[in-house]
Amino acid sequence: MMLETSTSFPLNAWYAAGWASEFQRTLLARRICGKDLVFYRTEAGLPVALDDACWHRLLPLSKGRLDGDDVVCGYHGIAFNPQGRCTFMPSQQTINPSACVRTYPVVERHKFVWIWMGDAALAREDMIPDMHWNDDPAWTSATGNTIHAQCDYRLVVDNLMDLTHETFVHGSSLGHKAVAESPFSVTHGPRFVTVTRWMHDIHPPPHWAMQYEYRFGKVDHVDRWQIIRFEAPSTVVIDVGVAKTGTGAEQGNRSIGVNGHVLNTMTPETETTCHYFWAFARNYALEDEQMTERLRQDVIRVFGEDEVILAAQQKAVLNNARTPFYNLNIDAGAMWARRLIDRMVDNERAPRRALAG
Amino acid sequence: MMLETSTSFPLNAWYAAGWASEFQRTLLARRICGKDLVFYRTEAGLPVALDDACWHRLLPLSKGRLDGDDVVCGYHGIAFNPQGRCTFMPSQQTINPSACVRTYPVVERHKFVWIWMGDAALAREDMIPDMHWNDDPAWTSATGNTIHAQCDYRLVVDNLMDLTHETFVHGSSLGHKAVAESPFSVTHGPRFVTVTRWMHDIHPPPHWAMQYEYRFGKVDHVDRWQIIRFEAPSTVVIDVGVAKTGTGAEQGNRSIGVNGHVLNTMTPETETTCHYFWAFARNYALEDEQMTERLRQDVIRVFGEDEVILAAQQKAVLNNARTPFYNLNIDAGAMWARRLIDRMVDNERAPRRALAG
Amino acid sequence: MMLETSTSFPLNAWYAAGWASEFQRTLLARRICGKDLVFYRTEAGLPVALDDACWHRLLPLSKGRLDGDDVVCGYHGIAFNPQGRCTFMPSQQTINPSACVRTYPVVERHKFVWIWMGDAALAREDMIPDMHWNDDPAWTSATGNTIHAQCDYRLVVDNLMDLTHETFVHGSSLGHKAVAESPFSVTHGPRFVTVTRWMHDIHPPPHWAMQYEYRFGKVDHVDRWQIIRFEAPSTVVIDVGVAKTGTGAEQGNRSIGVNGHVLNTMTPETETTCHYFWAFARNYALEDEQMTERLRQDVIRVFGEDEVILAAQQKAVLNNARTPFYNLNIDAGAMWARRLIDRMVDNERAPRRALAG
Repeated sequence: MMLETSTSFPLNAWYAAGWASEFQRTLLARRICGKDLVFYRTEAGLPVALDDACWHRLLPLSKGRLDGDDVVCGYHGIAFNPQGRCTFMPSQQTINPSACVRTYPVVERHKFVWIWMGDAALAREDMIPDMHWNDDPAWTSATGNTIHAQCDYRLVVDNLMDLTHETFVHGSSLGHKAVAESPFSVTHGPRFVTVTRWMHDIHPPPHWAMQYEYRFGKVDHVDRWQIIRFEAPSTVVIDVGVAKTGTGAEQGNRSIGVNGHVLNTMTPETETTCHYFWAFARNYALEDEQMTERLRQDVIRVFGEDEVILAAQQKAVLNNARTPFYNLNIDAGAMWARRLIDRMVDNERAPRRALAG
Repeated sequence: MMLETSTSFPLNAWYAAGWASEFQRTLLARRICGKDLVFYRTEAGLPVALDDACWHRLLPLSKGRLDGDDVVCGYHGIAFNPQGRCTFMPSQQTINPSACVRTYPVVERHKFVWIWMGDAALAREDMIPDMHWNDDPAWTSATGNTIHAQCDYRLVVDNLMDLTHETFVHGSSLGHKAVAESPFSVTHGPRFVTVTRWMHDIHPPPHWAMQYEYRFGKVDHVDRWQIIRFEAPSTVVIDVGVAKTGTGAEQGNRSIGVNGHVLNTMTPETETTCHYFWAFARNYALEDEQMTERLRQDVIRVFGEDEVILAAQQKAVLNNARTPFYNLNIDAGAMWARRLIDRMVDNERAPRRALAG
Repeated sequence: MMLETSTSFPLNAWYAAGWASEFQRTLLARRICGKDLVFYRTEAGLPVALDDACWHRLLPLSKGRLDGDDVVCGYHGIAFNPQGRCTFMPSQQTINPSACVRTYPVVERHKFVWIWMGDAALAREDMIPDMHWNDDPAWTSATGNTIHAQCDYRLVVDNLMDLTHETFVHGSSLGHKAVAESPFSVTHGPRFVTVTRWMHDIHPPPHWAMQYEYRFGKVDHVDRWQIIRFEAPSTVVIDVGVAKTGTGAEQGNRSIGVNGHVLNTMTPETETTCHYFWAFARNYALEDEQMTERLRQDVIRVFGEDEVILAAQQKAVLNNARTPFYNLNIDAGAMWARRLIDRMVDNERAPRRALAG
């Protein structure tokens, strides 16, 4: 099967199509990986994704309406079922058997609906990115607004894989000289890259001082960690937290500390824009909605700072004929992430190798 | 003569440049078939069309002013007469004899000004589309707003050549299951395509129930007709009406019924936009301005529904690399209309054949 | 050295980057000759121009901040000095010696900061356009707003090199039949073109009647002059004024008259937009700020009229496939100016000839 390919994102991958709560008994239009799609749920509640263009004259099906489990085109009433097969044509008894629209595998998991844009035969559910903190009862998640990021999703990956930028971009909340000054280590495999940084015996930045104080009272010296895990092609989960210095957090005892997971997954919309879904999960004070809201607002502000940087960077990339980015030591994690992405993309451009491998 | 050609519209055809009332003793700029034009009337009232770019430095002449029958450029005062010849140059006595701007044949008829964008030698007035209902004393015409349609004019032709879409797009006014369910017949010649549909013994939809009741009182069962006549490349006149069931309308006696003609003519602006001029003419209660206004508002609402569909369809066409539209039985009329358009376009690309033929 | 070239502007030339007053201890982003630049002043007050893209990941440096004389990138804190050399990299001790951003020669003169976009080795300060009236103590200058002109800078040159357009564009302030009717003479050299026009014994137009009356009382008949000097590639200084008829102004005695210099310099932003800087200098009533303001407002209004024309002309140029402009007698000055520009551009496309010549 001939696949359409992009040089910037693989198609044989699960991407978050959106928050599970966005998919209802209405028609939702969204562009993913350059394709216009229409989403809805069947009467039984199962999510459905179809090409958002009627087989007949290409009118977006999202301009139509639902009729039971079928979507009815708003122009001539042609109807398609969740499998994309035509079930009604106006003014004729028989239906052209080739009349259909493409449908895509979708799976609901961890409060997201995930979609597979490539070869459906390759879609295995065990490849869905691990975002279990988002609905694990041991965690409470502050769900973010979706950022409609005006950049290639890979710029967001770069951003998340090197947190030294906190020092310069998020000075008032998360930034700390220690982030840029502390050493880090990188590991990588065929699907994952991990970047681990421990900052020992530092003053906690405001975002963390606030959380620590909430649980244990004021603190002067903490050990802070950032354990970034990239899951190809576009999910980044960051295990973050602080514990009182000397209580053995790095050795595994985080009990005198506060811990969160920043959940990020980016879905290419076009080559230069993406849907950026994030949440912040914590494992304490699970019922405190005020704390949930406070953390949500904190992260919204922080990610708003990134959004500005990322859009400006994308513009500069388009305006500069210059060869690819130069790299610093701090980019080791991002470089490995890019390498995994490139490998996935390359595999799709040489489909036989992909099947063989 | 070498003609610039488009793959979507012929140039050797009369297009409506606008409503006759739009052309006055001022300069009107309008793009037609991809060309920027300036229009005005001479002191004697004759419409004039010139390229909207001064021979000298291309400033749009529409930025200038009228001086008698001449248009004077707003930059350096260079003047051109209705034949496009230069009549004044600043700071010099003699006028470069080659200084001119292109002029186009224009004719006022049926409350429109028509323009011929191609080879002027081929412009015959008997080729002007028949829109006589628009100023025939036996009819009263509710003149619409011009729709600046965000689509290839051929999508409007498609729309008008198959009225089954009324059932799905105009459900509250014109739609009726009968439109999609009734058979129709198609005839075609070198310049015309006709689609005829009779719907017998149906409940009239609101738009028609209102008109019938106005003339004859309430009615339960009517015969409804739609006789669509396409005149290549872009005029569609639709003879529409209802008569009391059993009074012989299909056989020619429309006396116990109400009748209108929907007059539509579309002028390409660019490859993906057009000027869509329409009117609704009726042959009863000619003096009732309240009825005229009511019908105008009805049609404005209906065509506003089409406008949304057409713009969405055009976007989808541009976003989809897919091969041309698939056709259903209902598209027979549109297919023939497209065939006549394609033939005109092809003839212009092989001009010798056009002259020979 | 391989230069990037444009067909419309030379790079080996001084362009006004902006008013000297615009350059402060903050970061100013401006696009010049298609390049995004960042400007600031050092602590010692010297202007600096760098490419507005960090060496690392291309984020515009203008999104960062100043630290002493260095600019610090707003993403990862990488710092560059006024020579464009990197002085800080996060999380590493040694700095990649190739890490730098391009810097450009800049010179402050006549209330402007001038920049040289081409080969820095060729930048000689004696090539900076003569705008001395702007800070000569014998003159007072009404400094204009910068016009962000939506056109190729050469359309502004054309505009200024032929003032017959005053008659048609600026009828209410400067226009006079005499401008279009009076003869003019043109001289030209390798870098300059001069157009001289004397209008003898005319009624002064409002702008000049006001100035003359201010100094000497009402006047009926004046001799008016316009001596336009183009300095390649994009500076036009116009010596303008009126003197009482018969007092020998053309022979050199301007004492019974009023005199100004219109200072214009245009800096290409892109191929189709430019920064247009202008001022109006006079040599009388130097301290009268009310007069300065009145003249400023007069010229703002006049140049606003040009701005509309120029933007419309640029659009028409882009929409017309037509061959270059046709010329009239009045275009002699503009033609010579274009010839000098073309020669500069051609020289850059054949760099050896430029070095040899």
